[in-house]
Amino acid sequence: MSRADAVLAMTADRRDLHAHAEPGWCEVRTASLVARRLAGLGYAVRVGREVVAADRPGLPPAAELAAAYDRALAAGADPEYAALVRDGFTGVVATLATGRPGPVVALRFDIDANYGHESADPAHPAERDGYRSRVDGVHHSCGHDAHTAIGLAVAHELAAAGGPSAGEVRLIFQPAEEGLRGGPAMVAAGVADGVDVLLGCHIGVQARETGEVVAGYRRILASHKFDVRFRGRNAHAGISPHEGRNAVQAAAIAVQNLLAISRHGDGETRVNVGTIEGGETRNSVPAHALLRCEVRADDNAILGYLCDRVEEVVRGAAAVTGVEARVETAGGAAGADSTPELAAVVGRVAAGVHGVTRVRDTADFKGSDDMSSFMNAVQDAGGRAVYFGLGSRLGDVHHAPGFDVDDDALVIGRDVFLGCLRELGVLG
Amino acid sequence: MSRADAVLAMTADRRDLHAHAEPGWCEVRTASLVARRLAGLGYAVRVGREVVAADRPGLPPAAELAAAYDRALAAGADPEYAALVRDGFTGVVATLATGRPGPVVALRFDIDANYGHESADPAHPAERDGYRSRVDGVHHSCGHDAHTAIGLAVAHELAAAGGPSAGEVRLIFQPAEEGLRGGPAMVAAGVADGVDVLLGCHIGVQARETGEVVAGYRRILASHKFDVRFRGRNAHAGISPHEGRNAVQAAAIAVQNLLAISRHGDGETRVNVGTIEGGETRNSVPAHALLRCEVRADDNAILGYLCDRVEEVVRGAAAVTGVEARVETAGGAAGADSTPELAAVVGRVAAGVHGVTRVRDTADFKGSDDMSSFMNAVQDAGGRAVYFGLGSRLGDVHHAPGFDVDDDALVIGRDVFLGCLRELGVLG
Amino acid sequence: MSRADAVLAMTADRRDLHAHAEPGWCEVRTASLVARRLAGLGYAVRVGREVVAADRPGLPPAAELAAAYDRALAAGADPEYAALVRDGFTGVVATLATGRPGPVVALRFDIDANYGHESADPAHPAERDGYRSRVDGVHHSCGHDAHTAIGLAVAHELAAAGGPSAGEVRLIFQPAEEGLRGGPAMVAAGVADGVDVLLGCHIGVQARETGEVVAGYRRILASHKFDVRFRGRNAHAGISPHEGRNAVQAAAIAVQNLLAISRHGDGETRVNVGTIEGGETRNSVPAHALLRCEVRADDNAILGYLCDRVEEVVRGAAAVTGVEARVETAGGAAGADSTPELAAVVGRVAAGVHGVTRVRDTADFKGSDDMSSFMNAVQDAGGRAVYFGLGSRLGDVHHAPGFDVDDDALVIGRDVFLGCLRELGVLG
Amino acid sequence: MSRADAVLAMTADRRDLHAHAEPGWCEVRTASLVARRLAGLGYAVRVGREVVAADRPGLPPAAELAAAYDRALAAGADPEYAALVRDGFTGVVATLATGRPGPVVALRFDIDANYGHESADPAHPAERDGYRSRVDGVHHSCGHDAHTAIGLAVAHELAAAGGPSAGEVRLIFQPAEEGLRGGPAMVAAGVADGVDVLLGCHIGVQARETGEVVAGYRRILASHKFDVRFRGRNAHAGISPHEGRNAVQAAAIAVQNLLAISRHGDGETRVNVGTIEGGETRNSVPAHALLRCEVRADDNAILGYLCDRVEEVVRGAAAVTGVEARVETAGGAAGADSTPELAAVVGRVAAGVHGVTRVRDTADFKGSDDMSSFMNAVQDAGGRAVYFGLGSRLGDVHHAPGFDVDDDALVIGRDVFLGCLRELGVLG
Repeated sequence: MSRADAVLAMTADRRDLHAHAEPGWCEVRTASLVARRLAGLGYAVRVGREVVAADRPGLPPAAELAAAYDRALAAGADPEYAALVRDGFTGVVATLATGRPGPVVALRFDIDANYGHESADPAHPAERDGYRSRVDGVHHSCGHDAHTAIGLAVAHELAAAGGPSAGEVRLIFQPAEEGLRGGPAMVAAGVADGVDVLLGCHIGVQARETGEVVAGYRRILASHKFDVRFRGRNAHAGISPHEGRNAVQAAAIAVQNLLAISRHGDGETRVNVGTIEGGETRNSVPAHALLRCEVRADDNAILGYLCDRVEEVVRGAAAVTGVEARVETAGGAAGADSTPELAAVVGRVAAGVHGVTRVRDTADFKGSDDMSSFMNAVQDAGGRAVYFGLGSRLGDVHHAPGFDVDDDALVIGRDVFLGCLRELGVLG
Repeated sequence: MSRADAVLAMTADRRDLHAHAEPGWCEVRTASLVARRLAGLGYAVRVGREVVAADRPGLPPAAELAAAYDRALAAGADPEYAALVRDGFTGVVATLATGRPGPVVALRFDIDANYGHESADPAHPAERDGYRSRVDGVHHSCGHDAHTAIGLAVAHELAAAGGPSAGEVRLIFQPAEEGLRGGPAMVAAGVADGVDVLLGCHIGVQARETGEVVAGYRRILASHKFDVRFRGRNAHAGISPHEGRNAVQAAAIAVQNLLAISRHGDGETRVNVGTIEGGETRNSVPAHALLRCEVRADDNAILGYLCDRVEEVVRGAAAVTGVEARVETAGGAAGADSTPELAAVVGRVAAGVHGVTRVRDTADFKGSDDMSSFMNAVQDAGGRAVYFGLGSRLGDVHHAPGFDVDDDALVIGRDVFLGCLRELGVLG
Repeated sequence: MSRADAVLAMTADRRDLHAHAEPGWCEVRTASLVARRLAGLGYAVRVGREVVAADRPGLPPAAELAAAYDRALAAGADPEYAALVRDGFTGVVATLATGRPGPVVALRFDIDANYGHESADPAHPAERDGYRSRVDGVHHSCGHDAHTAIGLAVAHELAAAGGPSAGEVRLIFQPAEEGLRGGPAMVAAGVADGVDVLLGCHIGVQARETGEVVAGYRRILASHKFDVRFRGRNAHAGISPHEGRNAVQAAAIAVQNLLAISRHGDGETRVNVGTIEGGETRNSVPAHALLRCEVRADDNAILGYLCDRVEEVVRGAAAVTGVEARVETAGGAAGADSTPELAAVVGRVAAGVHGVTRVRDTADFKGSDDMSSFMNAVQDAGGRAVYFGLGSRLGDVHHAPGFDVDDDALVIGRDVFLGCLRELGVLG
Repeated sequence: MSRADAVLAMTADRRDLHAHAEPGWCEVRTASLVARRLAGLGYAVRVGREVVAADRPGLPPAAELAAAYDRALAAGADPEYAALVRDGFTGVVATLATGRPGPVVALRFDIDANYGHESADPAHPAERDGYRSRVDGVHHSCGHDAHTAIGLAVAHELAAAGGPSAGEVRLIFQPAEEGLRGGPAMVAAGVADGVDVLLGCHIGVQARETGEVVAGYRRILASHKFDVRFRGRNAHAGISPHEGRNAVQAAAIAVQNLLAISRHGDGETRVNVGTIEGGETRNSVPAHALLRCEVRADDNAILGYLCDRVEEVVRGAAAVTGVEARVETAGGAAGADSTPELAAVVGRVAAGVHGVTRVRDTADFKGSDDMSSFMNAVQDAGGRAVYFGLGSRLGDVHHAPGFDVDDDALVIGRDVFLGCLRELGVLG
């Protein structure tokens, strides 16, 4: 396929995925179509329970999973693979092995979308050009549609080249990156076993111009995701308010004081209360509340500090209004840094890729990403891992309603991956 | 009908209504069955747009109204009347007029249930005896099922007596008392016009023993119901939290400081934030939040103070995090006091009713009730109005999951109404 | 003395006391001059430890007591009595007993000033006319200067009449009403023993027009005064903030949530955090904080509810930031109501007093006052007690910098007391 | 002087300064004794208005300055120099110039102590060995006593060597580092003019073992110090609380939400509310409050973000309770980094110093220090500047009551300075 044709194909793939955005553990359409495509290209494809462990934190309720399945089928999912990935087993691993000596090189792409409403502004490209998310309240606002499209394009070129020239190439399509849920579950299923070299990329992070490449991120933040539940006691707000135990008041105290957890002298921290819900009716002292939260830190020691403080804040806030509280884990991943010598490979490759205007050795990632699960697994086993940054103009910051990526960046991403495969000696 | 049969009938009616609890503006089954019953007894029945004005604050979304209609039909609503009261016109007025001189006496009964989950404790009578609410998240936790059953029983006895002996008796079945929405809308439709004497009762308020009667409440609190909406800006909670504008943080500040609005030196106040919801997803700075609130006060001047302070708190809270905020009215009613001489009539009558063990002249109501809309309308036009208290043992405080009334209290309520009709000269 | 001369004398007394305002337990000048004056008029005068029990909550530090003593002497205190009342024993009881049958009638006047800066506005009468407080940060902003001046005028007239005609008259000049500290300490010293009839008045409460009299307050609020101390841990705010334990943050949480303690369905409540101090230096995580607070309620049961909630809020707030907290009692008094039949006496008398334009039977006091200690003691022993309201135009609300009373009200107060003494048969 | 004697002398100096701790702009004893000592050693000494500009943010009230002057004289200050440095001009610059070609090398030492109580624990070395601060509420809890003692020792050795061998050596003793006040005021007075090489050190920062040296800190945080004043309206807390405007409540909202200002995606931030005071008396709605605060950031852009957010939080918090608020600057300094090639010199020198066990190239400073004012001035003029870290075991973290340094570290500091002077060619 010509480079121009590849650009058109990647743009089409990316926009199709964008329009059919699926949240974590619900990527039935995405995963089934990826699996079908790669199987068609000759890859050995494993999906579902083979590549995703049963212990999946932050799994949506069964009703949401069922609705996602129905929606996926209605939107053109592949029925055969859909049946295999349904109910929250939405991972895909596609392999081409040569049997010849050479490294096992894994490429990891995350596929899920975020919860959140996409902008309906007529100037928003996705709205203007007709690929705005058709799924209410779900939006590819983190660029995983781009990652998936790049993965498909790499797969196509690799297959078109007759497969690897040595060793093995393993393409990993991971669900539920948001919430840091899918990476640990795939690692637990053994997906990273035997990998010598791991590559992945993220679009638009610390690199907001198309043509930029960050050769390897460092300081991917450690993160813990958790829910906080408060349980109080209802009472008539006019007649007997003193008999109530106010769960929403406790939640409000917790919100303010979770955000006010002290910075740490040894490194960066993040705290977010992403959602809140509470109360039953307007004229009753509210008896329940639920917060969905996360903390992040430069390293695991600081993350431990944050988790300890979260427990204190929640227990204290509950005590203020005499309610009960519980903190429940909903996901998480450790921090990670790219292997410098592998990043150097990426940097050399990127410098020669058409369209690349600037290569930086490294940058702080500043966010969290369960790519770290794979990186830690590979590095701990003696391998090398890199998470590189693919520059892109953005419609807005990540996770905002107006977020969208620049389709011109996609082919650069593809070519960096392909160049690395050549440099690593697995592509002729 | 014998008194014993009446007790059985009222209990059956009350439990049927309890099991099919319907929230405000959604009382399609209740209103249609009341209308059908009273029409069958010979009353001139007006329903829907004839007795409810179009301007109804706090009307649920169209989808909820439609679902309520479908559910009501499935649960045995009268199809003819259901069609007339659907879409939030769920009021009923039934009249028997003699054409003979005499006062126009109106009796008002409220019919709606509350939002809130009913207790599933096996010891909870409604659970034990099989009449627990079948509508998830809706519960007759304020006793309007009892009020409606009493209204039906009064209607039956009055009809059985051949109707009034003089003047006119007007039975008003009012929707959406919770939120103080239905009363103003029925008064605006003219339902209180021409009424000389108005009677109503509430079960279990400041009278928690079966056999007690409070002859006429004073200090029904003035109340204002409102929603607060915050609108901020999303951002990635790890990469660019500083670009966000946190709506949930603003809401948390508002919750604490609405509750902390200063007491007033001239009388009692109440503040409640009944529900909260906000945020889009765990790992994004939250961009929206919604609070459903109410304030109450001993009089309208104090209520005005509270409303002014609410605006200040909300504007200030929004300013702290740089978000936008809006306060929207969702209901409300002024304060009211029973007319003392009419309360004296109730007291005399109650003292002679079988089962009454204690009559108190008056008590502070402490809560709000849009019965005040009718009372103010009647009193302002020179008439007399009373809201009397019907004692009942309760399963728990009003608006709590374990709330339920004592069915033995119902016939006492009926007999006080009937006794008053006799005392007022409209029942032979 | 002519009534005109009496007006001049009372005004002069009141302004002298105003200029030399002394806070609770520091009223050395006031008490010594009162004692000297009454002794000169022939009263049997008891002061200091004879009339004030040793257990005095909220006693200022020794250094402040010593400074007050020095300041009093420098400002013209009577040295002999000053030595007796120093160190926080600033009560005076002056008695004229006849030995003849008749009731023991006690009149109670409170003498202390408040902490707080008096207005220096040129339009403020005390500033304009040269009697603004000369004691920085202490201000007669509650009218006790007026009460004391009235007490002196009553004493003078009673002595001029040759003393009581029957029974006994006991004049009680009480320190430290602010904070509800002096009343309990004088009652504990036996000052109310044997009293048949107790009278007292407050200026300007629920009666803001000169010429008004409230014959007897009801609902003097029960109140509890307390200090809250937080103890955390310092740390460098830049280098190691995570090692700190923030006491000021805990105090801030406590402030908001003390104010947000739920209203009570059974009656009125008040919460105030009057002062706060905390922290050591700008660039260290603060390790201590102190709040001076009070709660008030319609009755002791509701006060108990408030005290329980205070403990919860403080413990919870401390737990949020991992600091220690302690709640310490600093004063308090129960609620009280005037004896209705004695209030009726006051009402009849007041109606005949020159200058009185309006007499109301009763009013809710809305504030707290340790006059309740005396009232409870007398009423519990079978006596009667009244706290009446003396109307006065005010420069601003009580406890505000611009507060001042109308000197024209003083003589009305004197004449109501004298009239009551006549009506009670102890003054000829 | 032998090295052993130097150790004894430095320890004695340090402990004398520790016992007579003086806060910023009040270092009359310290500055006068330093000036006297250096003059005696032959230095050209300039003090007071010659070396400190008149514009000094965060100057204490005149009464505090006067008290500090009196205390200094009573504690052995040099009267002549005390008169020159009084009233907040407590800087000293001592110069030895050769007239021969060579660089102008400046050494900067800060001399002030912190507000805060020193530990009285018998195990605390300063308590145990009798040099605990004799000034209540002032404590050398940041090690500037050590810095000053090192400066004196360097001065002594340099003089003993007959002065510099080339160029000029300028010793700068700077007041009021805490609050970032003295550095800008000395730079404004021209003290850094003409400096080619600037050296300074801090004890115990990111180097808590005696024997460690950090060759040159980077990331000295930019910082802004500010006061927040709230002005509300008093009212009687029982009778008319609704007429108040609560300044302490506004301050409490500000405390929580200043601490909750969002982290910044581009670098570290710090927020501290160091002290709070507010309110007038227990039973009045409080009408004023004052917060002393600071923010710090990795760079000036992030500092600007923090300052903008501070304004928003304060304005919003004030609006919540309807009070007025004002943010006033109290100090501040930009960020700075050591010049790498000069740090390399320090590293080489330190490696050869007796007692040094570990040399690190660099470390993040994590705190703020107005050494940055000098560094920026020198670097902007083309010179080189370094702030090196002198390792020391500590009794507790900086700014905590139990903080104290290890006297064994002092001579290491002296020797690094002297070694650098040699390496730079100004000491033979």
